[in-house]
This record gives sequence, structure tokens and C-alpha cells, in this order.
Amino acid sequence: MASFTEHYPSQLLSDAVDAISSLPGVGRRSALRLALHLLKQPAENVHHFTAAIDNLRDKARYCRVCSMISDDEVCSICSDRTRDHRTICVVESVRDVMSIENTGQYHGVYHVLGGIISPMDGIGPSDLTIKELTERVSALDDPATAEVILALSGDVEGETTSFYLYRQLAQYGIRISSLARGLGFGDDLEYADSLTLGRSITHRQPFHP
Amino acid sequence: MASFTEHYPSQLLSDAVDAISSLPGVGRRSALRLALHLLKQPAENVHHFTAAIDNLRDKARYCRVCSMISDDEVCSICSDRTRDHRTICVVESVRDVMSIENTGQYHGVYHVLGGIISPMDGIGPSDLTIKELTERVSALDDPATAEVILALSGDVEGETTSFYLYRQLAQYGIRISSLARGLGFGDDLEYADSLTLGRSITHRQPFHP
Repeated sequence: MASFTEHYPSQLLSDAVDAISSLPGVGRRSALRLALHLLKQPAENVHHFTAAIDNLRDKARYCRVCSMISDDEVCSICSDRTRDHRTICVVESVRDVMSIENTGQYHGVYHVLGGIISPMDGIGPSDLTIKELTERVSALDDPATAEVILALSGDVEGETTSFYLYRQLAQYGIRISSLARGLGFGDDLEYADSLTLGRSITHRQPFHP
Repeated sequence: MASFTEHYPSQLLSDAVDAISSLPGVGRRSALRLALHLLKQPAENVHHFTAAIDNLRDKARYCRVCSMISDDEVCSICSDRTRDHRTICVVESVRDVMSIENTGQYHGVYHVLGGIISPMDGIGPSDLTIKELTERVSALDDPATAEVILALSGDVEGETTSFYLYRQLAQYGIRISSLARGLGFGDDLEYADSLTLGRSITHRQPFHP
């Protein structure tokens, strides 16, 4: 496979394949296929494609309040007065915000950590926006009537980060919650892992017919 | 899945995802992952990435002789005087040239058709570089000592195209050959398809110990 890349008919093609295969999960064969595809498109389409990527990199920024990707200094969610700014949902990444927004069930605001505490990957609390979160919480009026939702993944790193945040935030007297865990809708008992099933039984809820 | 794309926090991000997901085989989730990856890279790396693609589209051209992708008017193979310019290997695409070059076994030149005759896809002879090929062959001195190798795929479209080319070229008295078909090296008889195995028996070759 590696030797497939030896004979490029064109330095321009070789450079483009190098660039495209630098993307995560894109091998050199796929990169060649994509480069040959782009070569066949009208020039204006290709320029539109590259301009969209340059614009994203050059003009997008991170919201001053919640660290979400934003076109402006403050993102569209943080600047939306109809949302509940006293409920802050803490997530790992931009993609988590998009997933939660997509449920249509949440009307508070967010705080994007930009990662998760993971000593194995060399990511500590200072690499994340935890200081910004504590400052944000400390600046709230009457924190006892406000809430932080820890919406991190259920693995070891997620639990560790949640516990760390809980210790940092508890001093402000703010309510701290986390996502409900249990069987997913449509999940089959037979195939559920025992940890999830165990939690689902322990934290069973009143039946609403 | 489709509804996942509804809530973009940023128009810039949405535009980039639209652009990236226009590539063949790249869905919107992968495009979002790639866009967020690019956003995290140093700006100069991203500009290098987009410039390589713009350069390929704006500066690469097709060789005047063989229609191969080239940085110059005539490609590096066609302008190589050490190669045998009286043996022309006809292939479907640029990728086929790269595959054959990679074998290190071929020292002639190429002719890239730019596709294959496929009435189902609306591709006829006039959409390919067949006219250029016949002109090239007709311009050869003493065609009886020259050769065209039809190196097209072994499916119906490939066979149809080979047959069409044979009819076009036979009048020039040039030798016309095609790729040997048979079991691949390391192929197991048990798993070979019967058409391939049948051809391998019919066209059996002297054993060279």
C-alpha cells in the first residue's frame, strides 16, 4: 500500500494528496480519489470549497462567555435573551452542544470545556476552561437558585472530570446536577450492560402512563 | 441523522461543513469532525492545505499527448526520451497509470481515455480521448512494428471499450494486445471465480522452473 504513493505524475497532485491525507482518518488512496474528484470540478466550486475552510479558520472564534465556536465575540446562544442564563450545561465539546440543541429539550446556556481531564493523554484541569467556569459561577447573583448541569460522558475520564468540577463548584452553593443514566429508548434489556441496567433499577422513576 | 445538521452554532462552521460534505463519500458528521479538526490546526497549516488544493485545480493540466495529469504541457512520461514511445498502453484513468508505473515492469508510454464507454452512464466514444488515440496511432511511422496495449478492466464496459478500440485501430496495422487474465499471485484455486479459472486453464503458459 505504501509503495502505491511512489509514482506521482505531477508534483501538484502529490502536494494535494499530501495535504488531504493529513486529515484524520483519510488515507492516501482516499486522498488521491478526492484530489482527482476536485480536479474535475469547475474551478469556482473548488475555490468556494477552499474559501469556506480558510474563512472558518480565519474568522471563527470562541465565545467569550462559554467557549463555543462563534461568528462573533459572544455566541448566538449566550446572546439570546430568551434563554435561561442561570442554567449552565457543562459539556466537553462543540459537538455535544449541537447534539443537545438538536433535542430541542434544553433552553439554558452552555459551557464548553474544550476536552476532558485525562492524565493518560496529559490533559489536566488547566488545559480546559474550568477557571472560566468557576469565574462565571462566582459572578452569578444568588447562586443557590442557579444550576450547573454536568453533561459529560459516562466513562472514567468523564466521571473524574465531573467529580473535579463538583469539588470546584460546590463552594458557591449552586445546584449541581448530572445527566440521567439508564436504558436508552428502545433498548433491549437482554443486551444492556449490567452497570447501565443496575443504575436504571436503582434510579427507577415513577411510571407516567 | 439528517436532523443532526440543524443546529449550527456558527454560519462559518455550517459553510465549511457544507463544503467538506460535498466531497464524495464524506457525510455531514465526518465533515463536522474534519471542520473542527481544521479549526484546531495552526492557521498556516490550514492555508497550506487549501493552497495545495487551489494550486492543483488552477495549475495542473492534461498532457497534450496522452491526457495524463501533468504540471507541464507534456507530461514527464511522454517527455522521457528513455521510454519506448512506440508502445502505447491505453488505460481508463490517471490512477491506472500510477498502478502500472508502480509495478516497475512497463517502459512504454500511456494514453488516458478519461473514462470507459458506458451507455448506461451516458458515456460514449466522443466523451473519451479516442479520437486523440487514433490520430496518435495514425501519425506513427511503420505502425506494424508498434503496439497498443488495451489495459482496461475486465468487466462488460471494459470489454466493450476494448472491442471498440480494436475496431478503430485495426486499420492502421498496429499490433494490439491486452492484459493477461488469470489467477492472481497467491490466489487460491478454491476461491477463484470460474470465469477467471477457466481462462487461466485455456491460456495456460509454459512452466518456467
